[in-house]
Amino acid sequence: MDDQHLQAPSGPRPALLPSLRWDDRPEGPVLVVLDQTRLPAEEVELVCTDVPALVQAIRTLAVRGAPLLGIAGAYGVALAAARGYDLAEAVDLLEGARPTAVNLGYGVRLAAGAYREAVGGGAGPVEAAGAALAAAKELHREDAEASARMAGHGLALLDELLPGGGHRILTHCNTGRLVSGGEGTAFAVALAAHRAGRLRELWVDETRPLLQGARLTAYEAAGSGMPYTLLTDNAAGSLFAAGQVDAVLIGADRIAADGSVANKVGSYPLAVLAKYHHVPFIVVAPTTTVDLRSEDGASIVVEQRSDQEVTEMNVPQPAVPGAGPAIGMPVAPPGTRAYNPAFDVTPPELVTAIVTEEGTISPVTGAAIVDLCASSRQVTIS
Amino acid sequence: MDDQHLQAPSGPRPALLPSLRWDDRPEGPVLVVLDQTRLPAEEVELVCTDVPALVQAIRTLAVRGAPLLGIAGAYGVALAAARGYDLAEAVDLLEGARPTAVNLGYGVRLAAGAYREAVGGGAGPVEAAGAALAAAKELHREDAEASARMAGHGLALLDELLPGGGHRILTHCNTGRLVSGGEGTAFAVALAAHRAGRLRELWVDETRPLLQGARLTAYEAAGSGMPYTLLTDNAAGSLFAAGQVDAVLIGADRIAADGSVANKVGSYPLAVLAKYHHVPFIVVAPTTTVDLRSEDGASIVVEQRSDQEVTEMNVPQPAVPGAGPAIGMPVAPPGTRAYNPAFDVTPPELVTAIVTEEGTISPVTGAAIVDLCASSRQVTIS
Repeated sequence: MDDQHLQAPSGPRPALLPSLRWDDRPEGPVLVVLDQTRLPAEEVELVCTDVPALVQAIRTLAVRGAPLLGIAGAYGVALAAARGYDLAEAVDLLEGARPTAVNLGYGVRLAAGAYREAVGGGAGPVEAAGAALAAAKELHREDAEASARMAGHGLALLDELLPGGGHRILTHCNTGRLVSGGEGTAFAVALAAHRAGRLRELWVDETRPLLQGARLTAYEAAGSGMPYTLLTDNAAGSLFAAGQVDAVLIGADRIAADGSVANKVGSYPLAVLAKYHHVPFIVVAPTTTVDLRSEDGASIVVEQRSDQEVTEMNVPQPAVPGAGPAIGMPVAPPGTRAYNPAFDVTPPELVTAIVTEEGTISPVTGAAIVDLCASSRQVTIS
Repeated sequence: MDDQHLQAPSGPRPALLPSLRWDDRPEGPVLVVLDQTRLPAEEVELVCTDVPALVQAIRTLAVRGAPLLGIAGAYGVALAAARGYDLAEAVDLLEGARPTAVNLGYGVRLAAGAYREAVGGGAGPVEAAGAALAAAKELHREDAEASARMAGHGLALLDELLPGGGHRILTHCNTGRLVSGGEGTAFAVALAAHRAGRLRELWVDETRPLLQGARLTAYEAAGSGMPYTLLTDNAAGSLFAAGQVDAVLIGADRIAADGSVANKVGSYPLAVLAKYHHVPFIVVAPTTTVDLRSEDGASIVVEQRSDQEVTEMNVPQPAVPGAGPAIGMPVAPPGTRAYNPAFDVTPPELVTAIVTEEGTISPVTGAAIVDLCASSRQVTIS
C-alpha cells in the first residue's frame, strides 16, 4: 500500500512506542500506528496518510483492540477531513473494516458527528476538520481516563471477591496498553493488582490463531515486571481443575443489550470452565463497548477470518525492515479448510460481573445494562 | 544420535508409510519408525538400531500415540535382545521415556516377560530374543484387530446415541493409523462412520502446542477422503454453542481404575463443554490403556514438557533431507516461562462412554472398569 509506509525507529526511543499517535507534519497530518503484528520481535511503526491505509492496518490487526479501534476510527475521520478526502466514503470504509468491533463505529460516528455539527454551524472545511480532530483527541484522552477508572473498579471487585489477596488471574488475548489510550481494560486491572502487591500470578492464554497473548500480553507483562506464565489455550482446563485460577479477566469487543459479551474466540470456553469450577468470570470494558442496537448474543455478527490463519503458522521474520510482518508456513495438508471465527459470544448467565469506567454491574442483566448506559455519555447515532 | 539415522524414501512407495516396522537386515535387525514430527510436509523414516535411539524418537514424539507406543516398547525390547544389549537397562530406559503412557510400559513388560519366560524354560539368548520379537509381533497384530473391533463398537454406539445419522464429530489430537497397529482408536470410529456414509463432518482440533490435529489428523482425514474442517482448540466452544457438534470422540493415554481418563491436554475442557451442552463425550481406547494400579485421576502422573514447545513455534523445514525436523521461532518475549502439561485428566462423571475392543462401558464406573479388565487378557506385571 503506497500510503502506509514503514518507519523504523531511529536513535534513542522510549521503552515502548505509543500504540497510535497523530502527527502534524509539514507535508500534511498522518496517523502513526505501532505494527502489533511484528511484536515482540520488532517495534515498527506504520505511517498512514489516508483512510485505505488505516483500514488495511485495522484489517491485518496491525492496530487492534476494542478501545483503540474506536480512537483509530475517530482519527481516521479526522485524517480524511484534514486531507480533504470524501468524508462519507471514509466513514463507510472505516465502519466496515471490522464488523464486530462496536467501538470502531462509535469513534467514526463521533468524529464525523463533530465535523457535520461544525459544518451545520457554518464552519468551513478546515475548521470542521479541526472539530473532528478535537473530538478524536478528546476520545483518546477520555479512554485513558476510563482505563484508570476501570482498573480501580476492577481491583475493588477482585478484593471483594477474593479477600485473601494473592490473586491468580487468567486472561485471554491482549487487553493492555496496546489496545487502549491508557493502560487497557482487563490487563489494567491485573496491573493495578500487581502495583498493589496483590497479584500472585498472571496466567496468559497464548490466544490462537494470532497469538496475541504470547506476543503482546506476555510482552506487556514482562515490560511491567509482573509475574506471568504463558500457556496454550487448551491447558487452561488443567489449571482450573488444579484450583490454580482465582478469577478470569477478559475484555470485550461488543456487549449486547442483554449483557451477552462478544470477545476474542476462546473466551466462551473459559466462561464455561469458570462456571463449572465456581471461579468468577469478569469482563472489563468501557461503556462504549455496549451496543444497545444488538438485542442479544444471537444478533451479534461474528467476523469469520481466513483459513490461512489456522492452516499456516505466521512466523515473525527476522528484524529486516521492509521484510514484511511475518511468513506463513503451512502446518496442515494442502486444501484444508478451517473454521475460524474471530470472536465468540458468552451469554450473561456465565458472566459474574462487567466492570466499566462508570462502575461494576453484577449480576449482569439487561436492566443493569440499560441503567449503566443511561448514566454514561451516549453518542447520537447518525 | 549415531544410531538413529534418516532414511529418505526412494522409488515408488505406498501412499502412506507404515508408522513403525521391524526390518531384518543383513547387518542386524532395526526398528524403522515414520518421523511424525515432519508430517505432513515430508514422509521420512528414522532407522533405530538401538534402544537409546528409539527412546529419543519417543521423547521427541517422532513416534507417539498410546497403542503405538506399546508396540514400539515391545519391539524395543526385542531389538535390545536381538542385538545382545543389556535387557534390564533397555526396559528401564524405555519405561521412563514417557511417564504417562501406560501402554509403553505394557508393551515393554510383555516382550521382556516373553524373553524371561523363554530363558526360564532353558532357551538360549537367540531363542529368547526370538520369543520377545514374537511377543512384539503378536501385540502389533492384536492391536490392529483391536482397532477394527473398537471401530465396530464405536460406530454402533454412535448410531444408538444419534439415530438420525449425519454425525458431526469433534476430535482432538491424533488417534488414527499413525498411533496404532491398525486404523487407530477414536479416529477409526469416525472412519467407520465415514465408510458407512454416516459422517457429515469431522471437526479437527489443531491441538496445540504440537499441532497433532492440524499436522496428522488432517493428513489422515484428507488421505481417507473424509469431510473435515480444522479449528483452533479454543474455537470448539463456538461450535458447541451453535449446536454443530453431535459427539466428541477422543483417545486415551491412561485410564485409571475409577474411570478417570488421561489424554492430550485440551481433552478435559472439551469434556466440560460437552457436559454443558449435553453432547456425548466418548473415549475410545484399547483395554491395555487401563491401569488398575492408578486408583484415580489424582494418582496419574502428568508429564510436564518444555517451555519452548509454547514459547517457540515449530515450523516445518523445507523438504531438505537431514535439515532437522523443524525450527523453533520465538513467539513470546525472551525469558517467558510456560505451563505445558502434556495431558489432562477427565473425571469419569464427564465421560459418557469408554469404547474398547472388548465392548463399551456406559456409565463409566470403577466397577465397570474392573469387570472389563477381568474379561480381557491381562499381562502379568513383572
